[in-house]
This record gives sequence, C-alpha cells and structure tokens, in this order.
Amino acid sequence: MCSSTTTSENNDLLVQSSDPNHPANLIPALCAKFWTLGWVTGTGGGASIRSDDLVYLAPSGVQKELMKPDDIYVLSLAAQAQSLDKRQRVYLRSPANYKPSQCTPLFLAAFTKRNAGCCIHTHSHWAVLVTLILETQGAGKDKEFLINNIEQIKGFGKGFGKSGNLGYHDTLKIPVIENTAHEEDLTEFLEEAMDKYPDTYAVLVRRHGVYVWGENVHKAKTMCESLDYLFQLAVEMKQLGLPWVTDIEPTVPTRK
Amino acid sequence: MCSSTTTSENNDLLVQSSDPNHPANLIPALCAKFWTLGWVTGTGGGASIRSDDLVYLAPSGVQKELMKPDDIYVLSLAAQAQSLDKRQRVYLRSPANYKPSQCTPLFLAAFTKRNAGCCIHTHSHWAVLVTLILETQGAGKDKEFLINNIEQIKGFGKGFGKSGNLGYHDTLKIPVIENTAHEEDLTEFLEEAMDKYPDTYAVLVRRHGVYVWGENVHKAKTMCESLDYLFQLAVEMKQLGLPWVTDIEPTVPTRK
Amino acid sequence: MCSSTTTSENNDLLVQSSDPNHPANLIPALCAKFWTLGWVTGTGGGASIRSDDLVYLAPSGVQKELMKPDDIYVLSLAAQAQSLDKRQRVYLRSPANYKPSQCTPLFLAAFTKRNAGCCIHTHSHWAVLVTLILETQGAGKDKEFLINNIEQIKGFGKGFGKSGNLGYHDTLKIPVIENTAHEEDLTEFLEEAMDKYPDTYAVLVRRHGVYVWGENVHKAKTMCESLDYLFQLAVEMKQLGLPWVTDIEPTVPTRK
Amino acid sequence: MCSSTTTSENNDLLVQSSDPNHPANLIPALCAKFWTLGWVTGTGGGASIRSDDLVYLAPSGVQKELMKPDDIYVLSLAAQAQSLDKRQRVYLRSPANYKPSQCTPLFLAAFTKRNAGCCIHTHSHWAVLVTLILETQGAGKDKEFLINNIEQIKGFGKGFGKSGNLGYHDTLKIPVIENTAHEEDLTEFLEEAMDKYPDTYAVLVRRHGVYVWGENVHKAKTMCESLDYLFQLAVEMKQLGLPWVTDIEPTVPTRK
Repeated sequence: MCSSTTTSENNDLLVQSSDPNHPANLIPALCAKFWTLGWVTGTGGGASIRSDDLVYLAPSGVQKELMKPDDIYVLSLAAQAQSLDKRQRVYLRSPANYKPSQCTPLFLAAFTKRNAGCCIHTHSHWAVLVTLILETQGAGKDKEFLINNIEQIKGFGKGFGKSGNLGYHDTLKIPVIENTAHEEDLTEFLEEAMDKYPDTYAVLVRRHGVYVWGENVHKAKTMCESLDYLFQLAVEMKQLGLPWVTDIEPTVPTRK
Repeated sequence: MCSSTTTSENNDLLVQSSDPNHPANLIPALCAKFWTLGWVTGTGGGASIRSDDLVYLAPSGVQKELMKPDDIYVLSLAAQAQSLDKRQRVYLRSPANYKPSQCTPLFLAAFTKRNAGCCIHTHSHWAVLVTLILETQGAGKDKEFLINNIEQIKGFGKGFGKSGNLGYHDTLKIPVIENTAHEEDLTEFLEEAMDKYPDTYAVLVRRHGVYVWGENVHKAKTMCESLDYLFQLAVEMKQLGLPWVTDIEPTVPTRK
Repeated sequence: MCSSTTTSENNDLLVQSSDPNHPANLIPALCAKFWTLGWVTGTGGGASIRSDDLVYLAPSGVQKELMKPDDIYVLSLAAQAQSLDKRQRVYLRSPANYKPSQCTPLFLAAFTKRNAGCCIHTHSHWAVLVTLILETQGAGKDKEFLINNIEQIKGFGKGFGKSGNLGYHDTLKIPVIENTAHEEDLTEFLEEAMDKYPDTYAVLVRRHGVYVWGENVHKAKTMCESLDYLFQLAVEMKQLGLPWVTDIEPTVPTRK
Repeated sequence: MCSSTTTSENNDLLVQSSDPNHPANLIPALCAKFWTLGWVTGTGGGASIRSDDLVYLAPSGVQKELMKPDDIYVLSLAAQAQSLDKRQRVYLRSPANYKPSQCTPLFLAAFTKRNAGCCIHTHSHWAVLVTLILETQGAGKDKEFLINNIEQIKGFGKGFGKSGNLGYHDTLKIPVIENTAHEEDLTEFLEEAMDKYPDTYAVLVRRHGVYVWGENVHKAKTMCESLDYLFQLAVEMKQLGLPWVTDIEPTVPTRK
C-alpha cells in the first residue's frame, strides 16, 4: 500500500475556479457523464487530468456521478519525482475524509511515461467482455485486441510523438495485461505494456476494464469513446459470428 | 395482509427538510435515478432508509420517478418492537391516499437483523435473468449465484461486522430464494437466507429481482450498482458461452 | 380515410393550463419520456387522455419529444356519438398545420368500449420482436402472448370492472392482431380482440407495436411500462432458450 | 484533400440568432441529442442544414455533445457552384481553430443532387452491424438492405419529388456502398448510389455508418430515427433467426 502526506499549505484554492474547463470542475463533469455510460458504476473507474506540473485526481470510493471539485486531490509531478520513496505520494491538496485512489500510480504512469494530459479508467462491461472473449483464444492470441476495417478506428492517433491518425484499413492493436489482486500492482505491467507497445493510447486489463490516455482531455475522452464503441461492436460481432480482423481490398475513387 | 395505524400526532415535519441528503428527499432522488436504470419500472421495486430509530419508506404503487417527500411513510423501530402484533405497523407519519408497501417487512428485516442503514429492492431484468439461468442448472446449483475473478467484485464488503472488501480472486456468493405469491411472505425466506449467509449484502428472489442493503445509503447504492453490473455481465457471459467461475492463478508483481 | 371538421368556436383555452397534470400538458410530457425509452421513435406511437367527455389527442407526424400543448386536438365523445357519420370527427379544438392522427379511432375504442382514461400506443421494438417470435410458433399459437411466474405480472389489473391485480402465478395473456395497411383499419380488429379478451388492458399488433390502456394515466402508463419490461424479458429469455410459461409449485410460508 | 478559403467578410452574424430553430443553434442541439443515442460517438458523424443558398456545417473533430453555434461553418451553394475548382470550398463564415469536416462534399451531394434541406451522418453501430451482416450474404446480395412488413417503414417518403410515404407492405431498399480510406472519396460512390436509387433517402456505408437526408430537418431527423430503429430490429431479428423480408398476405377490414 502507498502512504501519502499533504504539505502544510493544503491549498484549497487549487480546486476552486469558475472556469468549467478547470480540471477540478472538469473531472466531476466528465465522471458524471461517464456514469451515464456505465463506465464508472459502483465507484469503479475514474479520470485524472494533468495541467503542466499539477495532477488532479479523484479520491477512492466516491460515487462518480456525485463528485464535487472539493473532493479532488492535487499532486505535483516535480515534487513527486524528488521524493525519496517513489511509493510515497506528496499531495499539494487533499480532500477531507477521503483516501487516494489506487489508480493513482497508473494515472501517473501515463503522465510521466507518455506526457499525457488526461487519463481515463473505465470498468465498461464491453471492455471486460472483450478480454473474456480473448481469454478463450488460447495463449499467444489472448494478449492483444485487434480490429481493422472499421471507420471508427480513424479516431485514434498514430502514437506517442507521431502526427496524424490511424487509417480505415490500419489494424488497431490494444495490449491486454492480466489483472492483479491490488490495483496499484498493475502499474508495473501497465508500464511494461507501454514499453512494448510504444504507440498505444490504451491498455486493457483482463476481467477489469481499460486505461485510455491522450495528450489532452479532448483526445483522451474521444479515444475512450471510440474504443468503447469498438469494444461493443466487437462483442456484437462475436455474437453474430463475424471476425474482428479481415482482409479487404481498398476501394479507390476513379475521378480525382 | 398487514394492517397499519398511524399515531395521532401525524408529524409531517418528519418528511420536510431543505437538506438534499435527508431521507425524505433522498429516497425520491434515488428512485428517480433507479427508474432511468430500469430497476423500478411500473411501480415495482423501491428503497428505504433508516436514520437511527426512524425508518423512511416509499408507499405502494407509486411511480418511482415521480415520488415526492410528501409521499414517504415514517416508522419507529422501537415502537414497532414494542407492538404486541408483529405484523401490525405503527407509523409516525403516513401520506394521504396511499397504502404501505408490501416490501416493508423485507426492508425491516435488513434494518433489524443486519443493522443496515439503507435497503434497495430492484426488479432489474438482469437480476431476473440470472435467477432464470440458475433455475436451469438443476437442484443444488440453483440456489446461489457465484462469480469470481472480476474486478467489480471488490465493490462488496466482506460482510456484516467485518472490515474491508472482497478481493479480486474471492468468489461473490449471493443466495437465491424462491418467489412467493405475496411479497410480504418473502420475509421468512429472506431472514432464513440472512441466517444461512451471514456475510451477504444481497438476496436474489427468483423471477422477481433482488434485495440489497448496506450500512448506509452510499454502501447500499454502490453495492446495488456493482451487483447489477455483475448480473448484466453474467447474462452476457452466458450468451457467449463463458463460465461465471474460473480458476485463475494470481498475477504477482516482481518489483515491490 | 376519415374526414374531420372543427366547430366554429375553436377553443384554444381547452389546451391552456398551468396545471402540469392537465391533459394538454401531460401528453407532451409523457411523450417526451416515452421518446427516451424508444417507444415513439420517428413520430411513431403516441398517447391520448380522456377527461370525462373530452378526449385529448396528439396530431399525426409530430416529433414526440418536441410536442407542445398547442399541438393537441380536443374531441367530445358525446358530440362524436351524435355524429351521423361515425368516421367523421368533430373536434372542439384543432391545432393549425397538423392532421389528426390515424391512431384516433383506436384510442376512441379504448375510451368508449372500456371507459379508459388513457391509451398509449408504442412501437417498442421489444413488442415487435415478441410478435415476430410468436409468428414462428405456427397457427393457433401465434395469436396470444402468454407469460407467467414473473413478479412484474402483478402490475396488471384483473380486468375491466374487476378489482385487484393479477397474481404472481397467474398467466398474463395479451392478444395479437395482424397489422393492416392503414392504421385506422386496425380499429375493427382491436374491437374484436377487446370483445374476445374482455379482461385485457393491451393488444399487440403484429410487426407494429402495442396499444395499452387503463382507467387513468397512472394505470395506463405503469401497465405499459410493466408490459414493455415483460416483452424485453421474453425476448432475452428466447435468446437464452428459456420458456415463457412454466409450471411452478407455489412457495408457501410456514409461519403466519 | 480539399483546400478552403474564407471570404474577407467573415460574417459571424450568420451564426448568431436567438431563434432555437436557426441552423446554427439547431445543429448543436441535434448533435447533442444524437450523442445520447450513440450516433456520433468520439467526434464521428454529424449533421448539416441548408437554408436556401446557405449551408451550415459542423467542423471536423469536435465533440458533438459540446458543439456551439460559434463552431459552425457557413457556405454558399451559389458561390461554390461558381468556383472554378470544384474541390475548393469558399466559406462565408469559418470558426477559428477548426478544420472543415471531411463529410462536407457528402452533405453537399445531398443538397445539390436531391435539394435536401438537411443531411445527417451517423456511425450508429446498428448501421455498421447491418452492413457487416450483409457482407456475409455474398456478392449480389451485399449491396442492398431490404426489409418489409414492419410498421416503421411507413416513416419513409416514397422518394425525391414524389408525394406520400411508403406503405406497410412496401419493401424499404437502402443501397450500401463500400467504405473508402478517405471520407471525401466516398462522394463519388454516394452520388452513384443516388443515381441508381433515385428514390432513396439514405445510403449505408459498409463498416462505417449511414447518410440520411430529407427535404427539411424534421424529415431527415425522423427518417434517420426510423432507419436506426429498423437497423436495430434487423440485427435483433438476425440474432433470433428471423428473416428481414417476408411474403405476407394483406389483412383487409370487413366493414368500411
């Protein structure tokens, strides 16, 4: 378990803003929206936003559609980096009566290893079902979700530091890691997956859900939506006996 | 049938408060939310909250998304305990033009036998489908819903008077009781299930729905959400031919 | 085709009220809610309310979630009964720029033959799927939807002029009529079904939807919800290979 | 890729109106509604409205439920027709910080070839699933979606320049075109389908979604709803083994 401290100057001003796009306002608004999508049922899942050095985090065990700006933790990446004990969290601001989320080190991995501006974690049952279907494919085929020739794939960027998005005929590849008994123990495997799949913006967690990140809130949120759309489609394709990956000859226009 | 009386001082003040978290305000708000989830369709299902000695109850046959604080019954557990006829209800406050809900003795069982602070009853069709699927498993296998190795299981407490939650690899076990012609007759079987499964926070009712309780509104509501999530997942797993219980070797991190 | 006239005193006051429960306000509110349930997609379906002699009707072809009180037709049952041509409608109030709904004679059948206070017509795809599944059962079995031993059945009244509701073990029986090319031509067959099934509160229309009525708005709306719940459950049971009608021994409590 | 210019007088007044039915207000309101239906997930899909010579268009890559009137492009059909380079767009008004949508030439095809007043593009997964199911039917049967004897079919007009709607027994026929790597390249094939199916109000795009248009917003939106209803029904019928096209003898009333 991680321990945590808050610096003496527990600055509530860090979560007070009249700007609806301030991270302390945006995280509750996003989580309320995600609750209606079934992504953060029963306090599961969550979202974190990074603004330069500051990371805004939802607490553990809160009802996601009822969250308020006052519930948000704020952490400094620089202060965290200087901490001697990497598992010790130093919060610039902590809400009363809450514990930090066990998702915290996973969100930090996206921010530090990928320079992400936002990371979303859902328990979407479409994501869980995709990992369950893959589990039955046998060793070697159960560690990657692959899908191609679906328009919505164009919603994904080509990868970290690359410009442009995937094309219709490209194969979207999302790695799957095994779930661990303690969520924070996933961090090691999430980081390994990031190293092995340097271009991915998401990692599926078997029987658990998915982590999705992006350079900013817009990109993380829209890629998370596109991915959930593809997971739902994939489950429905499976029910109809349709394959996720096919070989399709490109259709080329005659006049240009 | 239970009979009921209301004491002379029919105190409407018991259901009047400007605090949105007052039980008389919270029950209508929760029920409206549950209506959008399909849990309390067609006046079915409901929710009850206990605050110390006072129990707040929705009336029978009301449209759950339209309920108002003025519709709420209030009952004293102490006064009820002193009643000579256990099936006679003594209400401190009764709404005009309504009848008490037949769920009342079932909610009271959760409050008196489990010291619960909130009890929710849904007719969720996922819950009903799970009991129907179990019914086909044959005698001996049809009385318990079992599922393991799904992250959302961690949303459940270890049990009455125990601290901490279930782990990812633990098997969640929810007893199933047979439905009776009259809802109040379920009470005996619900209490039996509570005795036989002292750690459960929920009981499925065959071809009917589920009762879920918790120490407070937050815990009852989030466990009810997690359970509905698992019921939906279980039905979809069944449609895809995937087993609900599996033997999975824990994944252990190498660095710590 | 029916023709229609409006009396000279086209009284807009009939649809102007500050009471949210006035039929001219309630029909738009109900239809907006039904739109979110997928019951009145693409201008299909609708609802009508009777208040004593006056019948309030939505117009043809309006987007149901956008309807306004000003869009409502008002008709007098007494005036209609005195009309020499039964197919000629005499409206006390007509909206500008609209045509009367082809559902009008079907709603009137529920009001005149059953003394209903409200009639709802949905295109719910669960209703349509139930009629399609029945169609494959062969002649003799395709004209009735039967389901028993599901708690939600208790949401239905025992029938026209009878007190009390169906019990858990009772079999709910909903007749199915064949669709006609013109909706108004359904009236004859709807009336036949009412004669043959004097206790029913609903009639399914093959490949089309369902008509549901009740003594008042509350009863029509909650029975319509319960029925849609049962239709959805029936389709899902079919997908899982579970029968709609079963023989279950009642569970009887030992203490009383 | 198309290039685009904006005339010097970049008139923001074109998208400022207090009328909720002004295209610049209506497009964001429609898109927010479509987002809740899952039609425009992850910035996919969109809608365009024509008012006489002016075409109002959503930009590329915007979150559809968050769109604002200020985000809307405005284009003159007449000015566009006079442009020497048909692939060069001349906007009367362009939002800052956005790129034009790649759907633009497809929307323009509906406006210029069909005199449509509104065109909607969805990524509805029901539409995508229908094209995937058709793909398995083999050459010759994979290019048309056919369905008949479903009431909702009556929601479709008989075709461009024709009065009246399809009947219950008519077969609705929606052509399917193959998806292209670049969305703008679909234009040629969409126009071909319009030529081959002069009466259609919609074209399915394989593994991508659907384009639906109508003489005005009301007709385009309600036909899009009816079509999505039919696509969902078709997928569910397929899962239940029910055929989309059947031969049904009309039911004729005896009294008239």
